[in-house]
Amino acid sequence: MTRPAKPSKAEIAAFIAESFQQTKCIVDEVGPMSATIRHPIGIDELRPGGTISGPVMMAAADVALYVALLGEIGIVPLAVTTSLNVNFLRKPAADRSIVGVCRLLKVGKSLAVGEVSLYSEGSGDVVAHAVGTYAIPKTSGS
Amino acid sequence: MTRPAKPSKAEIAAFIAESFQQTKCIVDEVGPMSATIRHPIGIDELRPGGTISGPVMMAAADVALYVALLGEIGIVPLAVTTSLNVNFLRKPAADRSIVGVCRLLKVGKSLAVGEVSLYSEGSGDVVAHAVGTYAIPKTSGS
Amino acid sequence: MTRPAKPSKAEIAAFIAESFQQTKCIVDEVGPMSATIRHPIGIDELRPGGTISGPVMMAAADVALYVALLGEIGIVPLAVTTSLNVNFLRKPAADRSIVGVCRLLKVGKSLAVGEVSLYSEGSGDVVAHAVGTYAIPKTSGS
Amino acid sequence: MTRPAKPSKAEIAAFIAESFQQTKCIVDEVGPMSATIRHPIGIDELRPGGTISGPVMMAAADVALYVALLGEIGIVPLAVTTSLNVNFLRKPAADRSIVGVCRLLKVGKSLAVGEVSLYSEGSGDVVAHAVGTYAIPKTSGS
Repeated sequence: MTRPAKPSKAEIAAFIAESFQQTKCIVDEVGPMSATIRHPIGIDELRPGGTISGPVMMAAADVALYVALLGEIGIVPLAVTTSLNVNFLRKPAADRSIVGVCRLLKVGKSLAVGEVSLYSEGSGDVVAHAVGTYAIPKTSGS
Repeated sequence: MTRPAKPSKAEIAAFIAESFQQTKCIVDEVGPMSATIRHPIGIDELRPGGTISGPVMMAAADVALYVALLGEIGIVPLAVTTSLNVNFLRKPAADRSIVGVCRLLKVGKSLAVGEVSLYSEGSGDVVAHAVGTYAIPKTSGS
Repeated sequence: MTRPAKPSKAEIAAFIAESFQQTKCIVDEVGPMSATIRHPIGIDELRPGGTISGPVMMAAADVALYVALLGEIGIVPLAVTTSLNVNFLRKPAADRSIVGVCRLLKVGKSLAVGEVSLYSEGSGDVVAHAVGTYAIPKTSGS
Repeated sequence: MTRPAKPSKAEIAAFIAESFQQTKCIVDEVGPMSATIRHPIGIDELRPGGTISGPVMMAAADVALYVALLGEIGIVPLAVTTSLNVNFLRKPAADRSIVGVCRLLKVGKSLAVGEVSLYSEGSGDVVAHAVGTYAIPKTSGS
C-alpha cells in the first residue's frame, strides 16, 4: 500500500474545518506521529459552576488524534474512531482554551492508536488524558 | 451516611435540563441501578456522510450514567465523571434517536461505576458501548 | 467469507487447555454471543491480605472473551487481544472461584468486542468488569 | 495529611518482592512521578507461537504504576488498582525482558492515575500501553 504524501498543517486544518463543522478546534501543530490542537472555551462549553463539559474535552481529544493521524496517513475522510478512553484528572480553567497534545503510539495498516494529554492553556498540569483508536479504511492511500 | 430519598424521574429530568443546558437528552426511565435516556438526532449531530458525531454518543452515555446515579444517590450536583471508556461498534442510523441504557455496576461511598449500551431507536444492535466512573462528593446525602 | 461450523464446548475447552497451558480456567458454557468460564482460586492467586491478584482477574476476563469468540468464529488460533479495559469493583472472596460471564457486543470481520462481568462463585455482585477487543485474522474461516 | 518521606528504590523493591511474591518484576528506577520496571521473559510467560501472554504484560504495567505511586506516597500496602486499560500494539520479542516505563499523571488524596509504555528491552517501539488508576486508602501517610 502506498500512502499519499504527508499533508501540510494548512491542508489538515482545512479538512477538519470542512468535515467537523461543529468543532471549534484549531490545529496548532502537526509533527511526526504527533499533533497539537486548541479548543477555545466560552459560555457554550461550560456547565453551571464553571466546569468545562466532559464531551467538549472528549471531542478535543478525538480531534487531536485525528489530526495526528491525518498527518501520517494523508487526508483520509473515512477513518473512524473505534474507541476512546478518557480520564478526567483536574478541573480545567474556565477562561482558558483547552490544548490537546497527541502522541501516536502505532499507525498500522488498519488500526492506529494514540494518547492525548489535555491542558488548560498556559499550564503544565494534565487536566484530562485520553487513549483512542482509529480504524483506517483499507482503500486509504491506494 | 444517610442518603436522601430517591428522586422521581421528573425531578431528575428537571435537574438535568437545568444543569446541562447544552444537552438534548430526554430521561425515559429511571429504575433500580439503571436508567434509559434518549438523544434526538438532527443536523447538528451529524458529520458529512450521515455519521453521528462521536462526542454526541459519548455525551449521551455520560448523561445515562449520571441519570442512573442520581436515581440511586439523589440529586447531587457535584458528582463528576472521572473516566469514560467508549467503544464504537456500528454506524448508527442518521434519522433515529440514540437510546442509552445504563446499568450501574457499583455505587460506593466515593465512586460509582456503570456501563451503557447505546442503540439506534427501534433496533436491538448496540452501536456503542461505554463504561464510566463517577466520583461522588463526600458531602452527598449528609 | 465463510466461517466454519461452530465448535462444541468440548472442542473449545480442549483448544484452550492446549493453547493457554498457564491458564487454570474451566469452560462452563458457550452460547450464542456468550460464554461462562470459571477460574479456581488457591494460594497462587492470592496476595497478602487475601486479595485475588488483579492479573488473575484480567486473565479470566480475557479467556472468557476468547471462549465466547471461538464459539462464534470457530477455532481460530491467531485471534489476539488488542485491548482490555478492566474496572475492579469489590474485593472478591478469597476462597471461591472467579466466574466470568461474557457477552459479545459485536463480531465483525476483523474486530470483535465484548464485555465480561466477573463474580465470586455463588454471589450476584460484580467484583470486576471488563471490556475487550479481539483482532480476528483475515484468513479465519476461509 | 502528611505523607511519609519518599522511600528509596531499595525499600520499594523489597516491599514489592514481599507483597507480590508471584511477580518476577525488577525495579529499575524510581523518579519523580515516574518509575521503570523490568519483567524477565521465559517459557512461563510465552504462549504457543512465542507470544508473550497478555496478562504478563498487564501485570508488568500494574507493577510499574504501583512502584511509581509508592515512590510518591510512601510504602502504602493498601493502595489497590481500581482500573487498568491496556492496548496491545505490537508483538513483543519472545527472548527479551519487558520494560515498563510509568509516568504518573495525577496523585490526588484518594486517587492516582498514570500511564505506562511497555517495550521489549533494547527497542524503542511501544508494544503495549496502559492507563491505570489506584485508590489510595484514607489512612495513608497519617
